[in-house]
Amino acid sequence: MQRNRIVIDCDPGIDDTFALILCIKKLDVAGIVAVGGNTGLQFTSRNARYVTELTGRTDIPVYAGYDQPMLGNAVRAEYVHGVGGLGDLDIPEPKKQLENEHGVDFLIRTFMNENDVSLVAIGPLTNVAQALLKEPELKKRIPEILIMGGAAFCGNQSPVAEFNIAADPEAAKIVMESGIPIRMFGLNATRQNWMGEEQVKELRAVGNKVADVCADLLSFAAKMYGHSELCDASTVSWLIDPAVVKKSLMVHIDVETKGEFTRGMTVCDWRKYMGEDPKEDLSHEKQVDADGKEPNVEMAMEFDKNRFWELLVEALKEYGK
Amino acid sequence: MQRNRIVIDCDPGIDDTFALILCIKKLDVAGIVAVGGNTGLQFTSRNARYVTELTGRTDIPVYAGYDQPMLGNAVRAEYVHGVGGLGDLDIPEPKKQLENEHGVDFLIRTFMNENDVSLVAIGPLTNVAQALLKEPELKKRIPEILIMGGAAFCGNQSPVAEFNIAADPEAAKIVMESGIPIRMFGLNATRQNWMGEEQVKELRAVGNKVADVCADLLSFAAKMYGHSELCDASTVSWLIDPAVVKKSLMVHIDVETKGEFTRGMTVCDWRKYMGEDPKEDLSHEKQVDADGKEPNVEMAMEFDKNRFWELLVEALKEYGK
Amino acid sequence: MQRNRIVIDCDPGIDDTFALILCIKKLDVAGIVAVGGNTGLQFTSRNARYVTELTGRTDIPVYAGYDQPMLGNAVRAEYVHGVGGLGDLDIPEPKKQLENEHGVDFLIRTFMNENDVSLVAIGPLTNVAQALLKEPELKKRIPEILIMGGAAFCGNQSPVAEFNIAADPEAAKIVMESGIPIRMFGLNATRQNWMGEEQVKELRAVGNKVADVCADLLSFAAKMYGHSELCDASTVSWLIDPAVVKKSLMVHIDVETKGEFTRGMTVCDWRKYMGEDPKEDLSHEKQVDADGKEPNVEMAMEFDKNRFWELLVEALKEYGK
Amino acid sequence: MQRNRIVIDCDPGIDDTFALILCIKKLDVAGIVAVGGNTGLQFTSRNARYVTELTGRTDIPVYAGYDQPMLGNAVRAEYVHGVGGLGDLDIPEPKKQLENEHGVDFLIRTFMNENDVSLVAIGPLTNVAQALLKEPELKKRIPEILIMGGAAFCGNQSPVAEFNIAADPEAAKIVMESGIPIRMFGLNATRQNWMGEEQVKELRAVGNKVADVCADLLSFAAKMYGHSELCDASTVSWLIDPAVVKKSLMVHIDVETKGEFTRGMTVCDWRKYMGEDPKEDLSHEKQVDADGKEPNVEMAMEFDKNRFWELLVEALKEYGK
Repeated sequence: MQRNRIVIDCDPGIDDTFALILCIKKLDVAGIVAVGGNTGLQFTSRNARYVTELTGRTDIPVYAGYDQPMLGNAVRAEYVHGVGGLGDLDIPEPKKQLENEHGVDFLIRTFMNENDVSLVAIGPLTNVAQALLKEPELKKRIPEILIMGGAAFCGNQSPVAEFNIAADPEAAKIVMESGIPIRMFGLNATRQNWMGEEQVKELRAVGNKVADVCADLLSFAAKMYGHSELCDASTVSWLIDPAVVKKSLMVHIDVETKGEFTRGMTVCDWRKYMGEDPKEDLSHEKQVDADGKEPNVEMAMEFDKNRFWELLVEALKEYGK
Repeated sequence: MQRNRIVIDCDPGIDDTFALILCIKKLDVAGIVAVGGNTGLQFTSRNARYVTELTGRTDIPVYAGYDQPMLGNAVRAEYVHGVGGLGDLDIPEPKKQLENEHGVDFLIRTFMNENDVSLVAIGPLTNVAQALLKEPELKKRIPEILIMGGAAFCGNQSPVAEFNIAADPEAAKIVMESGIPIRMFGLNATRQNWMGEEQVKELRAVGNKVADVCADLLSFAAKMYGHSELCDASTVSWLIDPAVVKKSLMVHIDVETKGEFTRGMTVCDWRKYMGEDPKEDLSHEKQVDADGKEPNVEMAMEFDKNRFWELLVEALKEYGK
Repeated sequence: MQRNRIVIDCDPGIDDTFALILCIKKLDVAGIVAVGGNTGLQFTSRNARYVTELTGRTDIPVYAGYDQPMLGNAVRAEYVHGVGGLGDLDIPEPKKQLENEHGVDFLIRTFMNENDVSLVAIGPLTNVAQALLKEPELKKRIPEILIMGGAAFCGNQSPVAEFNIAADPEAAKIVMESGIPIRMFGLNATRQNWMGEEQVKELRAVGNKVADVCADLLSFAAKMYGHSELCDASTVSWLIDPAVVKKSLMVHIDVETKGEFTRGMTVCDWRKYMGEDPKEDLSHEKQVDADGKEPNVEMAMEFDKNRFWELLVEALKEYGK
Repeated sequence: MQRNRIVIDCDPGIDDTFALILCIKKLDVAGIVAVGGNTGLQFTSRNARYVTELTGRTDIPVYAGYDQPMLGNAVRAEYVHGVGGLGDLDIPEPKKQLENEHGVDFLIRTFMNENDVSLVAIGPLTNVAQALLKEPELKKRIPEILIMGGAAFCGNQSPVAEFNIAADPEAAKIVMESGIPIRMFGLNATRQNWMGEEQVKELRAVGNKVADVCADLLSFAAKMYGHSELCDASTVSWLIDPAVVKKSLMVHIDVETKGEFTRGMTVCDWRKYMGEDPKEDLSHEKQVDADGKEPNVEMAMEFDKNRFWELLVEALKEYGK
């Protein structure tokens, strides 16, 4: 079941900004909660407010959640997103104010009172985990979480850990073990969505200020890395148009919090899918009768990059001239 | 450089037996050392002696090494290989005796005195690590270790750990950090080599007692699991005919010894190979400037199953009628 | 500096009840926050309200905080305190209601707005740690925390871990590393305060309902274990009459969260105090020039049991006939 | 039962040298095995040979064992013993040679063939653990191990870990879990034996070259630290004259190998001894019905420093003029 109404927990961030712009146009956004992640909360909570002004939707409330992970020190990705989180964009201080309520209390209030709201979590999972700890009933009330995080096999923050999970592994473990239905869009899927200078040109061609900001952000990323995967925008497109994910698999995932080299890894049990032919990896059922645990995650495996791009450009065009 | 002379450290084991039969015919085997692994040392050291009798090569000395891993309790794979290690084969007690010297002392003596001998390790790495600890100079004397163990992405003993490494993670860590050049043939490669009933028939057609034993062993495995990957035989074929491995990659591997879910994992840093197109996974250099460590392992990625099979059948035919 | 005004975070619990009764009579209690610990939050938050009714002080607000520790499953001490937390006492459901505000939000609000309030934490430190995480400025605002927990050398929950710390080691670590001045009253001090049947008689002799409840609770404990250490009451007496602690030492304490046998241990660095004569243990400065960290805790070492008892009986008498 | 015949595993080391001198005169030393510890094996194995020359007992064989711990890097105490292990003593290269046999193989051979030999281990336990791993039958053959290491409550290498255990925690864990009867003389006992300048004078008064070397070594330690505890000599005196230990207790000890702050700690379960009065700490049986494990160690608690000193001086005098 696709829900139209969502709450977004995010750490904008370049690709979070694309995600917010897409969701604000295409879905019913009940609220935006900022979390420390790509950069500090002071910037992510500012950037979220900036996007509501940019899109003319200052009616959407923005909340600040946690700046720091549950344990240990924050990991930032400022080398990717710039210190302020939005590349070299010169963001004016928004007039739009943060709500007084703490982001975690907003999450609890919303999901304890509303039905049929999806939770979209595209930053570290600190706020979500803390909400689950503060209100034990909450796990029965959230119908679904769509997460940008983790990976089927690979890593970016470390050889095997993805940034959002590595930034707060204990929080990710709490969320993954909550029993709430989870859809995960990980690095293995985002890597199918490289965008670069060519796409910058298409964004410029749209010809409105929202698209121009998008073009500036993608251009910054493309200049630094040759591309951006627009991880968070890819992720939320799964909610807007489920057909962008051409293949997903149910899998059991444990989050490693303790390893010397593996802290923050999403440990996927693919054993039952492992087939004979490596070209058809993951294509066969039940190689051996692995005593695996029950799947707790639906993981995106194949992504339709073109369909995503059409969706994004269409949404940007809807922001007018 | 391919070396003709080898020492084999093994835990036979169905597929170890294939490996021994292949090496004894095609290479100059200086000695065989047994280790506890697939089954206990009492059986693996017996089975190694049995293979020297079967192949008429009782001149090859067989040594017993360690039965138990460095820390903790032994993990066995008797559900795969049978309690005695050779399926349902009724092995007579060999007349051939074990050498008096401990297997680890044989390893030390051989590599401290001979040049240009390759070490082939197709069981848990306990003996190899203990030899490196007992004789600190040894790591400068072993020109190469070919290991059956680990994996690029997957696991069998756990979602992310392969049996030989999981059976003694501390030993594997010591070997991997030794600085000795290592070639690793892991699960990702063995999974390209499924053998089953069809191959049993071909083995029977060879028509000698060595091939008959091979047929019996493969038949046992095929009946239990539908197939066998002949992991160890695949591995040693890389020494005999390097062309069986069509593609290999240099990669940095750390062995995780501490994780809650990842103990025994070979943590491969593939970041610099990760490409845009998942169909070409691992095909591009340097996605981001990952601050990875220097590669310490050459890992087999693509295996020529047909070439292997021809090599195996040819070797079996050479055992005569 | 002794502060008269306090907030109490507790998990009543037999000895918490004594502590509440003592504080309510002798100090200015701004509020009571319940936490899951000796028993579940449903009981600890009920029992706290019960004590306000028993003492005729329903004007003191009672808040519910966290039931579960930050990570993992709750550890309970129901074998000590009974399932309901108050031995075999048959507690009526209090008319007094819990405040609507979450206990952690009360902690934050109070310490962000008031000066010169001491925090007394005599249960697991979950609420305190969560408050520090939710409001990063809080650690500059709490002038002092008095903790019942940990130990100089010994343990009860495990050979080296005390219950309150073992019940939420991650929370204890956060509190201990906060930089807030901490006074710790641990097992080594409580063990100097064994109370038994003799004291039950003295309590009965006081002759009011508050003292009667105390007599019942101590009698329950004495019957089960031969004694009670009245850990929490001993601890709070340090605030009311500093002279009950005859000797304290400044020491650096780290909380172990990871060990196989030591999780929840308060690792005290006594090296600089270790003297020649074991009878004078801890009496000499600087045995070796230990590169220890700066002390972060003032730890109670010697307790004046008689002075405590007089203080307690006096307070109970003040509750009238 | 006191055994007269011993094997000593040691890392001389100032206090190891005292221990060797004492044992060589008072017991039947079957062999000395050197291990890396206070300083590297090249020095400890040299110093052991030097002591056999000094004492005129070059008939006692000296073996080299392991230089490095089972896992990780060696920890040295060269700030205590000097780089060469014997303070500022200018040791000539001994003529006495090391045996060809590895120290661990000597341990295995001796205990598999002789009965009623005690093992005295006064350095890191690497050799002992490796012998137990290499010969699984060995644990049934060693009647007793006397260990200098660990502590009842305290630490020197860290707040809670003693040097010999911290230098190879995995080895210590293997030994402690072996089931072999163990007597442990830890820091809590050695701290009752501080020796200083006064004792240096008494040693000089003995007037032979062995005592002179002892005086030089103790003088070096006294100048650096104000005292030496002569840990290893205190330990072996327990074998020679059991009455030097006035009180010992049976206790269960686990060795922590994993903690963030507690690696190398000997975790003693004193719970059943904890009494009411701290002055009588450890004096009462069964405070609570702790579900502790069976005691595996007899730990020295009270040491008769004067009796030890008389024993030492007497032994030195026996070395003649």
